[in-house]
Amino acid sequence: MGNLNEADFWDSVKWEQDRIIILEQTKLPLETVFEELTVVEQVWEAIRQLKVRGAPVIGITAAYGLYLAVMNSEAENFEQFWTELKQHSDYLASSRPTAVNLFWALARMESCAQRAKGLPINKIKELLLEEAHLIKAENTEICSNIAKYALPLIKDGMGILTHCNAGSIATATKYGTALAPIYLAHEQGLRLKVFADETRPLNQGSRLTTWELQKAGIDVTLICDNMAAAVMAQGKIQAVFVGCDRVARNGDAANKIGTYGVAILAKEHGIPFYVAAPTSTIDISIATGKEIRIEERYADEVTCGLGKRTAPLDVKVYNPAFDVTPAKYITAIITEKGIIEPPFESKIVELMQKTTQSI
Amino acid sequence: MGNLNEADFWDSVKWEQDRIIILEQTKLPLETVFEELTVVEQVWEAIRQLKVRGAPVIGITAAYGLYLAVMNSEAENFEQFWTELKQHSDYLASSRPTAVNLFWALARMESCAQRAKGLPINKIKELLLEEAHLIKAENTEICSNIAKYALPLIKDGMGILTHCNAGSIATATKYGTALAPIYLAHEQGLRLKVFADETRPLNQGSRLTTWELQKAGIDVTLICDNMAAAVMAQGKIQAVFVGCDRVARNGDAANKIGTYGVAILAKEHGIPFYVAAPTSTIDISIATGKEIRIEERYADEVTCGLGKRTAPLDVKVYNPAFDVTPAKYITAIITEKGIIEPPFESKIVELMQKTTQSI
Repeated sequence: MGNLNEADFWDSVKWEQDRIIILEQTKLPLETVFEELTVVEQVWEAIRQLKVRGAPVIGITAAYGLYLAVMNSEAENFEQFWTELKQHSDYLASSRPTAVNLFWALARMESCAQRAKGLPINKIKELLLEEAHLIKAENTEICSNIAKYALPLIKDGMGILTHCNAGSIATATKYGTALAPIYLAHEQGLRLKVFADETRPLNQGSRLTTWELQKAGIDVTLICDNMAAAVMAQGKIQAVFVGCDRVARNGDAANKIGTYGVAILAKEHGIPFYVAAPTSTIDISIATGKEIRIEERYADEVTCGLGKRTAPLDVKVYNPAFDVTPAKYITAIITEKGIIEPPFESKIVELMQKTTQSI
Repeated sequence: MGNLNEADFWDSVKWEQDRIIILEQTKLPLETVFEELTVVEQVWEAIRQLKVRGAPVIGITAAYGLYLAVMNSEAENFEQFWTELKQHSDYLASSRPTAVNLFWALARMESCAQRAKGLPINKIKELLLEEAHLIKAENTEICSNIAKYALPLIKDGMGILTHCNAGSIATATKYGTALAPIYLAHEQGLRLKVFADETRPLNQGSRLTTWELQKAGIDVTLICDNMAAAVMAQGKIQAVFVGCDRVARNGDAANKIGTYGVAILAKEHGIPFYVAAPTSTIDISIATGKEIRIEERYADEVTCGLGKRTAPLDVKVYNPAFDVTPAKYITAIITEKGIIEPPFESKIVELMQKTTQSI
């Protein structure tokens, strides 16, 4: 549907009247295409095919998707309505197996419906749309708070390295998580020089991070992953900011493959290494990062993911999607409730005990 | 000209009767194409367009190329012949500005002609072809000796990481430099598990190293550059072998971009990091790696080198082709004269003083 909302490019998933509008992220950076999702099957496809990506955005899309699935329901009683809703929820949950936010958002929508049992069906529908809006609004608040807490870590003139994309379009907010302090500092007039790792094999750094920072008018330079050490040695980097997918009780953090290497390089060059982590990504049931299962993905992503084959046909490939950065390499974890510095474990447990679970 | 010499795939440049046969490396790994060069302009193009690459192979190609240029000369005296030869030599030297071996090989051919002054032109031509053969033969000997000296560093069952391509096809020998001990150990029946870094942006690791190791029947697994740290953390790597482009007097080594980062990761994981360096790459006129000028290359190599554009059109890119690994990260430098361990400086100077310069 073309460049309908180019000005709000960062708003990568939103509700409009009777449909979901998504920024089609697989087309970036060559085309900025916003796509309409009007039936639940399109929502399933959009998540499956990574048209929407980034844990928060997947969750928000699924929430709106579930409302979309039932908004024209002709169910005459709660039981009928619930059966339909549960069917659609299970269907959406099958779109991607590993995105925790997907299941979390769907469970929250189901819980909302259950709480409304007894109310007229139309009222329940209204409450479901409100719940989806709330999930999105809460996420915006979280990113905004991460930005505020992290801001003091940034100084005028700094060079900052980031890996993968934990920015606007991964969160459907202006700020994102890892990029949150960068956007806020830029708004406040600080001059920054951001270096974006390409982030092989899916190139989220070159395709997405450079694109969104450029749009925001922030000075960004693309490098290949293997150039980070040289750039650090040249004194061009004063801080590293990355996002994360899961934090263990001791502070070990799983994030996009390559993050661990960047953390070691930062330590060797005396550069602080910051992990932006909404409390929803902290999992205190896990003692250390060793318990985090690392997803291995297809060889083709490495050998021919970018337009032409760049390796022999039958080559063996090892393609882990994530790695775990041990807590000892992390200078601080930035949450929406504040910054946690080492030693992490007792502070993480304390923070999480104070945090009200959303479901 | 098709797969004429597939069995000798590693022989990436050779003389046959009245022409040069090269392995067209830009077509790898999709096609194994050997190409005939019958006029000097084709030789210039082959070097310029990276159809031949790897410092030793560039030197050998230029030497044969210069003979090719003058073999049908109708010069009637030395002065005429020399004028022609010098013209062709300067022309070939303009094919690539940074490859030291190119100038070194051409100077050696010129020197050969000068020494033969007074002999019949046909005899001089004969000597020039012999000199080109000698340059190639010496290189084979060098790689073979590097293999022998490095072999004791390898143990059965080892996991070995390498970066870029310093193998057979970079040297037109069976062994290469960094891969030399791997090939020799394989010949002797040792079972190795080699991991090849993709080596962005030109993917020499995925395109060339996996290809040649696979052909030799060696177990090789391709990883993206940013996966090396994770693979090391999993205990899969017991040694790193890389080539180099220039070694300073103190042991600092310039090599393909990304090598420095790998060296830091190796140190952090307690893994030995070995640099294979023919003495021709050691430059004792340079005190440290700080004096080595690093070539910066085109943005397009990063943004659209893989078949389709993977970054915004006007994105800033920093694309250094090499980095410098400080001597403190290097466990040993392997030359054709023996292995040098830290402290490097005095041993490097001693070794180089014993080494007879070839010109």
